Amino acid sequence: MTYRRLYGIPDDWGTAVNVVAMVFGNMGETSGTGVAFTRDPASGVPKFFGECLLNAQGEDVVAGIRTPLPIEALAKPLPKAYQALVTTYKKLERHYRDMLDLEFTIQEGQLYMLQTRVGKRTGIAAVRIAVDMVNEGLIDKREAVMRVAPEQLSQYLYPIFDPQEEAKHQPVGKGLPAGPGAASGKIALTPDRAVEMKARGERVVLVRHETSPDDIHGMNASEGFLTAKGGVTSHAAVVARQMGKVCVAGCESLEVRHDGTVRFGTQTLKEGDPLSLNGFTGAVYSANIPVVESEVVQVIQGRVTPAQSEKYRYFSTFLKWADKFRTLEVRANADVPDQATIARGFGAAGIGLCRTEHMFFAENRVPIMQRMILAKNPEDRERELARLLPLQKSDFIGLYRAMKGFPVTIRLLDPPLHEFLPKREDLMVEIAQLHRKEDEGLREEKKKLLGRIEELHEFNPMLGLRGCRLGITMPEITRMQVQAIMEAACEVNREGIKVVPEIMVPLVGLAAEMKAEKDLIHEVADETMRRYQTKFRYLIGTMIELPRAAITADKIAREAEFFSFGTNDLTQTTFGFSRDDAAKFISFYMNRRDRCARCLRADVDQKTMTCRACGFHHAEPPHNILDFDPFATLDQEGVGALMRMAIERGRAARPDLKLGICGEHGGDPASVAFCHRLGIDYVSCSPYRVAIARLAAAQAALEDAKPKASRGGKARTVARSSSRPARARVRR
Amino acid sequence: MTYRRLYGIPDDWGTAVNVVAMVFGNMGETSGTGVAFTRDPASGVPKFFGECLLNAQGEDVVAGIRTPLPIEALAKPLPKAYQALVTTYKKLERHYRDMLDLEFTIQEGQLYMLQTRVGKRTGIAAVRIAVDMVNEGLIDKREAVMRVAPEQLSQYLYPIFDPQEEAKHQPVGKGLPAGPGAASGKIALTPDRAVEMKARGERVVLVRHETSPDDIHGMNASEGFLTAKGGVTSHAAVVARQMGKVCVAGCESLEVRHDGTVRFGTQTLKEGDPLSLNGFTGAVYSANIPVVESEVVQVIQGRVTPAQSEKYRYFSTFLKWADKFRTLEVRANADVPDQATIARGFGAAGIGLCRTEHMFFAENRVPIMQRMILAKNPEDRERELARLLPLQKSDFIGLYRAMKGFPVTIRLLDPPLHEFLPKREDLMVEIAQLHRKEDEGLREEKKKLLGRIEELHEFNPMLGLRGCRLGITMPEITRMQVQAIMEAACEVNREGIKVVPEIMVPLVGLAAEMKAEKDLIHEVADETMRRYQTKFRYLIGTMIELPRAAITADKIAREAEFFSFGTNDLTQTTFGFSRDDAAKFISFYMNRRDRCARCLRADVDQKTMTCRACGFHHAEPPHNILDFDPFATLDQEGVGALMRMAIERGRAARPDLKLGICGEHGGDPASVAFCHRLGIDYVSCSPYRVAIARLAAAQAALEDAKPKASRGGKARTVARSSSRPARARVRR
Repeated sequence: MTYRRLYGIPDDWGTAVNVVAMVFGNMGETSGTGVAFTRDPASGVPKFFGECLLNAQGEDVVAGIRTPLPIEALAKPLPKAYQALVTTYKKLERHYRDMLDLEFTIQEGQLYMLQTRVGKRTGIAAVRIAVDMVNEGLIDKREAVMRVAPEQLSQYLYPIFDPQEEAKHQPVGKGLPAGPGAASGKIALTPDRAVEMKARGERVVLVRHETSPDDIHGMNASEGFLTAKGGVTSHAAVVARQMGKVCVAGCESLEVRHDGTVRFGTQTLKEGDPLSLNGFTGAVYSANIPVVESEVVQVIQGRVTPAQSEKYRYFSTFLKWADKFRTLEVRANADVPDQATIARGFGAAGIGLCRTEHMFFAENRVPIMQRMILAKNPEDRERELARLLPLQKSDFIGLYRAMKGFPVTIRLLDPPLHEFLPKREDLMVEIAQLHRKEDEGLREEKKKLLGRIEELHEFNPMLGLRGCRLGITMPEITRMQVQAIMEAACEVNREGIKVVPEIMVPLVGLAAEMKAEKDLIHEVADETMRRYQTKFRYLIGTMIELPRAAITADKIAREAEFFSFGTNDLTQTTFGFSRDDAAKFISFYMNRRDRCARCLRADVDQKTMTCRACGFHHAEPPHNILDFDPFATLDQEGVGALMRMAIERGRAARPDLKLGICGEHGGDPASVAFCHRLGIDYVSCSPYRVAIARLAAAQAALEDAKPKASRGGKARTVARSSSRPARARVRR
Repeated sequence: MTYRRLYGIPDDWGTAVNVVAMVFGNMGETSGTGVAFTRDPASGVPKFFGECLLNAQGEDVVAGIRTPLPIEALAKPLPKAYQALVTTYKKLERHYRDMLDLEFTIQEGQLYMLQTRVGKRTGIAAVRIAVDMVNEGLIDKREAVMRVAPEQLSQYLYPIFDPQEEAKHQPVGKGLPAGPGAASGKIALTPDRAVEMKARGERVVLVRHETSPDDIHGMNASEGFLTAKGGVTSHAAVVARQMGKVCVAGCESLEVRHDGTVRFGTQTLKEGDPLSLNGFTGAVYSANIPVVESEVVQVIQGRVTPAQSEKYRYFSTFLKWADKFRTLEVRANADVPDQATIARGFGAAGIGLCRTEHMFFAENRVPIMQRMILAKNPEDRERELARLLPLQKSDFIGLYRAMKGFPVTIRLLDPPLHEFLPKREDLMVEIAQLHRKEDEGLREEKKKLLGRIEELHEFNPMLGLRGCRLGITMPEITRMQVQAIMEAACEVNREGIKVVPEIMVPLVGLAAEMKAEKDLIHEVADETMRRYQTKFRYLIGTMIELPRAAITADKIAREAEFFSFGTNDLTQTTFGFSRDDAAKFISFYMNRRDRCARCLRADVDQKTMTCRACGFHHAEPPHNILDFDPFATLDQEGVGALMRMAIERGRAARPDLKLGICGEHGGDPASVAFCHRLGIDYVSCSPYRVAIARLAAAQAALEDAKPKASRGGKARTVARSSSRPARARVRR
């Protein structure tokens, strides 16, 4: 009935019934049953792989009462049936040109095939099978590229838990999977403590209520981070992905207490206790689960040669094929030379976003930065900026060298300045604690500092004095940064390395802002090149990260040579969702469907649509508010509409406008596909997602080339015998 | 030369020279000079009004060496000339059909007219002259309505300083004119202190770094507020305009110190010292300047009858004429019955925005609200909500009664909940100070409270858990509010008063949010009406205050019966400007033109375009980034484009969609005109701006009806004799 409704089959067609004889695997020692894969679904190695039981039906395998034998165990007792099975699997694989799973029963020595489907596989197996099948002449490269889901590539890139070890433990908490991989170590509750523990040779997991830029040194020293607050684009998450570290964010059951302990529900852990984070699932374990390192990353870091790693060779061959199809360029977000080197290793064709502020958070730089911010007049500020200049310049030199002629997009200072200062509330508490007479001097000093911090304090720093507003109200900052960018470029250029600096102005909402910054940049850049007696091309562009920038893109494009969509911020303002605060209600929005609309308990009788807890009857089933996290996957309807508007208006005003995206979405396959359809020139993502973006871009291009009608899902059921009794079905 | 370029007159036309004999007013006692207005420019009273000097030239009047005489003083010594002057002024006024200023010289008894122009006048005079001239048959009502600039009406509405008294003082500081009027009183630095001083019968001016919702009781007790931070839509400013109080916000030179003093640059004042605020100019005086009360407000408050106030009668007649031309409805933003009564008095045809949260800030309600927020489960929360229900209901009853059948738009709870709680940093300091052994119990209690507040803490509360996100994640809040709204409506309906509740869901960005809230509202509303055995129409709509709402307005309109543009928030997210934090850089943006582009000093030689301070040469003159404060005047290019999009898409999905605007822009004349052109149904503004909006709406409609070619400025120079020597020109 459901079927007929579903497929729109008219009632008067009558009903066909297929009658097939049942087969039995439990008719003695010449009978049996089993399930197999035509290749190893974990590694992709081309080897028949499966399990069987003699004198058994499928349900016996499922029930787990008897331990199944490897598939080869059939060869001896039932050689004819086994040979028939081998012949059949090879024939089926050749026919369907893919790795298959098979279910079979042998009744008194006679093989019966029950079902075959395309087999599920790991990412690593998917790549190997695709490459092998091209080499075997079964499929072409185009098809190979389409056969691996981009996200599956992440299995190559990150350390993972030994699956059998992980299965032994129950999670103590669950958060958002915000930085992929697996990390295991001892709990540190402060960044200083993390550094200290790391120095003692310990592996550390940093646990924080939330992280902030002054935690960077501790994050660097840790294997992974766990936070109670924040979503997939929170500070902890963004830094984790860029550093290639593991992160579980917004773990609601976690409470970080002031007494040096943390709580998960009723369980209390203390600093130094073991903790493991699964960055793919968000699971948190109070145990030390063994981690397996990524071979691919070891090759890229130069610790293993490609010749030593078969996995790397498959990975690299596969991506080279993908690159032939894609039209979208892939760049990486990288702030320091080390990250740039990794990014090149993953195939990034340039840096799409270098966040210059990250350079200032280093321990030896923060004090200079603080003095610069607290300066009372432009002269004092300029003196401190002069101290920062050589430091920034040397970072840029490193970036240009690592990118070897590929473009390097450098964003001018963006965050609100108080991010660099001690926290206001911490200082207030310190002052309150300095109540003794002998503390008076120190108290007065701290009060003065607090006064200046109060002046800079903002209620909503995301919407405050940041981005280009900094450079416009304090042009000496822009001047110093442009000088560092251009002096570095001139010097690397002298070394004979081609340099393509792209200077990016953040948070522009008004064409007049862009013009003001552009004029200043041109002045300093041209003056610097004159000083070095050289001349090369550099670009000046802007981030499109405010709705107003998208709406007035035509005017802004008259002043900007490129646009880079900052989709994190654009999502924030389009939705009015703070990425640091919205995780909680976004997760509610994505799971509202499971709850009673009145009392929110997850106790609704799905048949009567009545809540068992409060008795509320639902006229229609509760709906989700959001089906995806807009900070992880681009909201095509809202944010995407603004992007389309910006592209149309921007290109109308400047036909050769270069377009990129450098938000976190640059590494999300669905968002990459959307960017391809929008006609953007490049996506830029964190170094560890470059491979994923390369594949997603290739698939988007191939999808685009396909005639509409042939598009469809990739998981196909190729054949299914409906004749076998339901209970005999073998499950995996 | 400039003239000829300006008007495009070709050089080969040659130059005409007008030669006119000069006249002298200093040829003895039968000569003289003077300036006059055809009516009193301050009050509008139709009486010849001016000054003269015998045996003098214009420069003698300007130089101020001799004290001029009233114009009537000419009648005796020079009766013939005076008679000629009177005849001429009457003839001129009849000819130009407006109040004029005149300059004249009498040479040996002979009158010479030098110049006449339309005369400058106060708002009060403008209205009276317009009304009188209609009654005299000189102009029609249409022209009368066009002759008064809407902003001029505010002179009727607010207390003002005696102009001569104000001129005697030098301001100690200057901020943004954020709440019009003039206030004078003693400085209070905390809301409690303000209440205390008011109780002693003192007039109080509240001085704060910034204000927050828990200052409300102190704001209520004060004549006006002065803040160091915040712009024209900061909390202090919005509350001031709604309460009809004076506010100067964002006074940069003000420093509110922790020792009970305030500083303006080098001058230090303490609590209790006199302070005066000019809310029209932003000037702050350290003196007690006498204030003159508004007659119109006294009539509206019922303290004076219309018969007793000629001013009120002119005001009211003029606005009645304006109302005939306008098509835009004008409503008021009012949160409590008192405000609603004032709003009706000013002619508001309904309430466009009742912010229900303001009802919770009352002293007896905040503790219940706090317990509600801190509740650990829905049951505890519901118990506290049940206590709030009768309080909200009685407020709504008052609103409905005051509005006598006009629609009342009630917005569900909007602000982030921690606005109702003690400040996190204050609590942290308190805990730090409780270091003695005997404080342990209290310390633990405060720590617990802090823990819950930390959970609710947000980095960017504007973009956090607020608006409909509250009602969706805590549906019991929406249920209580809708029950209060509808029970009140049912009860007032029973009294025979028509009730039109319009329930407004704030901060919708997703159609699914609107649907979730709509379903819940319908359920509670219908259940309530059933319980009261009554039925009447109510509307459910939403604010459009997020870019995503504007972009997806078609989908949202399927769930909403009306849209009300919340242009404060829409401006915030479209620009990425926090209205609490952006004042500083907005003011820089609006004044950048005056500064050197490199060192920002206001010391650029306008001829050479070189900075005298740093020597920087400007290739082109520095430009402003913004020409207006987008929180005061609607940004038509950016925010306006989103509004237009929302209207088009919304009406396409629901042709009878009702459209309003309830942001602060609803009271800004330029924004009202823009709303008229957009085809919005109504604007809603603070009660004290209703009259201004009514006039602005009438003028927008009249402008619309005019043929394009005849549009032009309202300040015209009607005649000018170019023959008189420059030095003889009389200045006012």
